[in-house]
Amino acid sequence: MIGVFDSGVGGLTVVREIKKYLPTENILYVGDTARVPWGNKSPETIQRYSAQICDFLVSQKVSKIVIACNTASAVAGDYLRNRFPKVVFFDVVQPAVERVCSENFFRVAVIGTKATIGSGVYQKKIAAKKGNVSVFSKECPLFVPLVEEGWMSGAIPSAIAKKYFQSFAARNVEVMVLGCTHYPFLIPTIRRAVGKNIKIINCATETAKALKKDESSQRQRRKPSKQGKDKYCFTDASPHYHKMIMRIMKEKISIKKISFKA
Amino acid sequence: MIGVFDSGVGGLTVVREIKKYLPTENILYVGDTARVPWGNKSPETIQRYSAQICDFLVSQKVSKIVIACNTASAVAGDYLRNRFPKVVFFDVVQPAVERVCSENFFRVAVIGTKATIGSGVYQKKIAAKKGNVSVFSKECPLFVPLVEEGWMSGAIPSAIAKKYFQSFAARNVEVMVLGCTHYPFLIPTIRRAVGKNIKIINCATETAKALKKDESSQRQRRKPSKQGKDKYCFTDASPHYHKMIMRIMKEKISIKKISFKA
Repeated sequence: MIGVFDSGVGGLTVVREIKKYLPTENILYVGDTARVPWGNKSPETIQRYSAQICDFLVSQKVSKIVIACNTASAVAGDYLRNRFPKVVFFDVVQPAVERVCSENFFRVAVIGTKATIGSGVYQKKIAAKKGNVSVFSKECPLFVPLVEEGWMSGAIPSAIAKKYFQSFAARNVEVMVLGCTHYPFLIPTIRRAVGKNIKIINCATETAKALKKDESSQRQRRKPSKQGKDKYCFTDASPHYHKMIMRIMKEKISIKKISFKA
Repeated sequence: MIGVFDSGVGGLTVVREIKKYLPTENILYVGDTARVPWGNKSPETIQRYSAQICDFLVSQKVSKIVIACNTASAVAGDYLRNRFPKVVFFDVVQPAVERVCSENFFRVAVIGTKATIGSGVYQKKIAAKKGNVSVFSKECPLFVPLVEEGWMSGAIPSAIAKKYFQSFAARNVEVMVLGCTHYPFLIPTIRRAVGKNIKIINCATETAKALKKDESSQRQRRKPSKQGKDKYCFTDASPHYHKMIMRIMKEKISIKKISFKA
């Protein structure tokens, strides 16, 4: 079973992509809806919350954990790899970085939460792989609430996107990385705001591709698992999140409530 | 000492008002920034978080607790009064209800978070005091993120306010209750959206007045406390919240980090 976790429901966009690329894989998902969002919180708090979730996932015998949250990937990825040396971790940052560096991009825009952008994770990882790429980043803290409100398109999301992307206008960026799992819902709005010549990279898709590549390389050693054994756990389950989950998964899934100490 | 708590920094607007009306009173403030916001969470989760904070406040020997959060007042007020029978609780809903009912208002708009509006607390409390008042309510979940982003005025907040207030247009409301401690920052924007004939009621001000009234009635029995002994505790202290706190309090305050179990 693959463990997937996020601060809330956004990581379900990663699950959706994983199920496209690996339809027979079983998923154990944890969404920390009782403490969502993490994007404005401090690294220590995000590390603590992430470790609690990984303790739970490990107790449920997952072999791999996908950190399906850019904020947690950015500020807790190394921390978790150190703390859980036996677990194979995937995050949503590295596959997007690989994609950027494998193509001929030299002027890259990255958008994300305050914590993700503040961590400088994309700049650092891209610079480590390829020296001559300029990375311009912008925090877009209103995008998650817009998605949660269900206002994905129209005048207001467009005005907000334009305001956030002003700083990219003079930069001649060639590609934009959506550095937050909520942002794929805004792709049509983002597309209109940036124009059609800028490539958009969706971290969820890149992460699913990375997982598939890894699974393929191990396929001969493993039996394929049975379909339909996915489990979805949340730390809070208000009607608001039930609605969001339905909207993302496009099917009724049964939800288990769990809670964490400290 | 008076205990004041909120899911985050919004309750500081209540502290600011209390200090205007009761400048010599000492405040112990708790903001649950590690788990903010509460507005989309379930009643059980909000009750659990509120009780943890009140346990802490009681351990610090406060005599009164102000629930400086509409969401918590709405869904955890009765729960806390039952659980802590020795504490005198003030909330931010009741004083606004008293104000509405004491004047000649018959068509009232209430705005707040999903949890506050979903609880129907204003409708119920106003109906219990005065039968012939129509209450129209609207959840405005983007207002808190707007304030946190620092976008208090301009085209985008105005467009969002207008969209939220559409439903009030045909209702001929006479007064609007700001049912969230973050909303006072948006008063100029809200004022423009509703027009100048609608009275705006700020819960923070009404709560401070209620506290002053209560203090005045007990003044003869108590010694005035020394000024300048306020304490501010937060469960997370990212630079983002440091900036927000400065913006609200208009002075540098020292912050203590605390944490809660479960």
